[in-house]
Amino acid sequence: LPVVLYDNAVSGNCYKVRLLFALLGIEYERRPLSVVEKSNREEVLGELNPGLRVPTVVLEDGRPLGESGAILWYFADGSERVPVDRYDRAKVLQWMFFEQYSHEPYIAVARNWLMHDLAPSQEALAEKQRLGYVALDALERGLGDGRDFLVDGYSIADIALYAYTHVAEQGGFDLAGYPRIRAWVERVAAHPGHIPIDA
Amino acid sequence: LPVVLYDNAVSGNCYKVRLLFALLGIEYERRPLSVVEKSNREEVLGELNPGLRVPTVVLEDGRPLGESGAILWYFADGSERVPVDRYDRAKVLQWMFFEQYSHEPYIAVARNWLMHDLAPSQEALAEKQRLGYVALDALERGLGDGRDFLVDGYSIADIALYAYTHVAEQGGFDLAGYPRIRAWVERVAAHPGHIPIDA
Repeated sequence: LPVVLYDNAVSGNCYKVRLLFALLGIEYERRPLSVVEKSNREEVLGELNPGLRVPTVVLEDGRPLGESGAILWYFADGSERVPVDRYDRAKVLQWMFFEQYSHEPYIAVARNWLMHDLAPSQEALAEKQRLGYVALDALERGLGDGRDFLVDGYSIADIALYAYTHVAEQGGFDLAGYPRIRAWVERVAAHPGHIPIDA
Repeated sequence: LPVVLYDNAVSGNCYKVRLLFALLGIEYERRPLSVVEKSNREEVLGELNPGLRVPTVVLEDGRPLGESGAILWYFADGSERVPVDRYDRAKVLQWMFFEQYSHEPYIAVARNWLMHDLAPSQEALAEKQRLGYVALDALERGLGDGRDFLVDGYSIADIALYAYTHVAEQGGFDLAGYPRIRAWVERVAAHPGHIPIDA
């Protein structure tokens, strides 16, 4: 049996996994779930993932795994996409936790609201965008000191941050004032084996 | 130089690190920061942690590390508090990402609002509590099948989830309907070397 990916075509969290699978040459079966109409989540994912989120994978042996960050770590550790050095490994996790706590809840949610006309109010959207820019400021600083990638070489930290940053304009964000982020987005997209979010 | 911990006495995220340090016998210096008045965060943490959050540590050699999950992994990997098996390691990370995305933003924030009278409205607090109970439901399910701990033995996944769960009542949550969570809270607290949040 191949790996099964409970997936959504526009979700950046799911794209992280598809991008890693493309880079590593991992075969898998996509099972699409909606990120708007979620009433079947408990039925489909209840036994598989406590967070009921996509992506969720089911491994070849039937064991489930949830959370994009945990899935990236499971498949990438031991490859070039996770560093060997102890401190660098922790820095990769630092950026991945930063993305889930301080970046995704603002940039991904603003994008989802605009794509599906879900914003509860203009004020709520403006607050998401304000905090999204705080995250982009932190990412721009993190790409300082002439570094090409967030840690040491192209890692799953870059994959995790790239997923929603490269489509931030769909959330109403303007990247014009972020030259390092724009150069890094191009660098990730130019990596051999890269696939776009709508592949 | 000892490890420096930028810390807050009531923050569950900081407590995770203090609890692990106590279990591992790691000496460190505490530097308190407020979690209410945050205007000095950029000045103090700007060079150390892109998320400007506590906990942030500075290692013996001067290198900084942020995000509680990354700090736990850095210090615990190689000890009994992180499993060796590849799948179990990913499950530990699954629970830690679940905590930061689906548990902490509701249970910790409701607690912070109630402790410091910060709730913007009763409706906002009720929504935080509703989603906090969803997270508690998932945790209760995760402790099923007669398991004593979330993965294989007492791990940093338990430390990460314990930190805010054991003080959830301060966020207005009633754990009476969660017998597995209550037994697990007692099990964690009974572990040799345990320290309370206010130690």
